Amino acid sequence: MPGHASEAAVRRLPLYYRQLEELERRGTVRVSSGELAAQMGSTASQIRQDINFFGAFGQQGYGYNVSELKAHLAKILGLDASYTLVVAGVGNIGHAIVNYRGFADRGFRLTALFDSSAALIGSSINGVPVLDAAAMPAYLAENPTDIAVICTPAHAAQATADTLAAGGVRAIWNFAPVTLRVPRGVAVNNVHLTDSLLVLSYKLSHGEA
Amino acid sequence: MPGHASEAAVRRLPLYYRQLEELERRGTVRVSSGELAAQMGSTASQIRQDINFFGAFGQQGYGYNVSELKAHLAKILGLDASYTLVVAGVGNIGHAIVNYRGFADRGFRLTALFDSSAALIGSSINGVPVLDAAAMPAYLAENPTDIAVICTPAHAAQATADTLAAGGVRAIWNFAPVTLRVPRGVAVNNVHLTDSLLVLSYKLSHGEA
Repeated sequence: MPGHASEAAVRRLPLYYRQLEELERRGTVRVSSGELAAQMGSTASQIRQDINFFGAFGQQGYGYNVSELKAHLAKILGLDASYTLVVAGVGNIGHAIVNYRGFADRGFRLTALFDSSAALIGSSINGVPVLDAAAMPAYLAENPTDIAVICTPAHAAQATADTLAAGGVRAIWNFAPVTLRVPRGVAVNNVHLTDSLLVLSYKLSHGEA
Repeated sequence: MPGHASEAAVRRLPLYYRQLEELERRGTVRVSSGELAAQMGSTASQIRQDINFFGAFGQQGYGYNVSELKAHLAKILGLDASYTLVVAGVGNIGHAIVNYRGFADRGFRLTALFDSSAALIGSSINGVPVLDAAAMPAYLAENPTDIAVICTPAHAAQATADTLAAGGVRAIWNFAPVTLRVPRGVAVNNVHLTDSLLVLSYKLSHGEA
C-alpha cells in the first residue's frame, strides 16, 4: 500500500467487509462501486478511492468480484492471522462478548476471561475459563496475548489497562466509559454505546425520523 | 440551522458532546477549536465548521465556553426533551443496556422490557418490568413510545421491528446482526460491535499498534 491509511479510511474497511459478506450471503457475484455506494450511503468515488488505496481494483464495466474483494479486504484487515483475545470483566457486556459467535470465524481465539468475583472465578463460559483478575500478570507472562477486551467497571479500567500493557498486550478494545492512558505501541479502541443513541435522539428532535 | 446536516456531521455531534462533558468534569472553562482538534484527532477547521453549522460560535482569541457549548449541543441533540424507551430482548446486551446508568441523565426514560422467556416475564430489572413480548402491540397502543432497543436474537429482529413500527415507535436502536427493513419515518441505528475489533486487527497486522 502506498503511504499510511487515514484513521477514517481504516474505520470504513469493516463496513465494506460487512457489506461484501452480506452480498456473498445473498449470492451476489459482482458489484459496482455505484451499487456499493447506494447500499452504504456513500459515494462511488469515495468507495473506489478507498478500495484502490488498499490495493484492490475493479474492472471498468464489470465492477468488483464480491468474493475476491472480500478475501482481499479480509487479508488487509488481518483476518487471515489468528489473534488471541482475553476478556477482563465478566459482567453483562463481558458475557455478551463471550457469547458472540462471530469471533472464531474471523480468527479471534478467546483464551481466558478474568474477573475478581469469587462467584465467577473457577467457572467457565462456553468452555473458556474465568480466572482470578489478580492472576492476570502471571497468565500473560505464560500466554502471549494480542488483544484484551476491557469490560470492567469504570473505576477498575485504568489499572486493568496498565496490567495488560505491562503484560505485552498490544491492543485494547475498551467498553468501560473511561479515557485510558496506555504506553506508545498499544492501540486502543473505545466503544461508546450511547453515541448512536444520541444520533437517534437528534433525528427524533429534528423530525428526521 | 441553515439547510440539512450531513449524516457524518450528525455522527460527530455525540463525540463533541462527550469531549465537552469530559472537559467540564476536569474543570476546564474554555477550549479552542485547535485544542478540541488535538484532543479528538480532528482538525480545527472541521470542528469550527461543524459547530458553526449547528449554530454555535467561538470567540476569536477566546475559543468556546465549555459549559455553554455543551448546553447548546445538548439542545441540538434533543437531550432537553424526554424520550420513552423500551428494550426488546433481555439477554446479555439487553441487561447491559438496562444497567447502563447514563440514560436517565440524558433524558431517556426506560419504561418497559420485553422478552418471550417465561422465566423473565413478570420479573423486573432495576425497577423496570419485563413484559411478555406477545403483549407488545397492546402495550405500545396504551403507552406511546419514542425509541426501542432491539436486543433479540437475529431471527426475531425483523418481526420485532415490524411490531414496533406498527405500534408507532419512531426510532430503533438495533443490536441484532440483521439489516432491518422499516417503513419511511422510522429511524434505525445499527450497532456493529465487531467493527471496532476489526480496526484493532488492522492495526495489529500493520504494525500500527
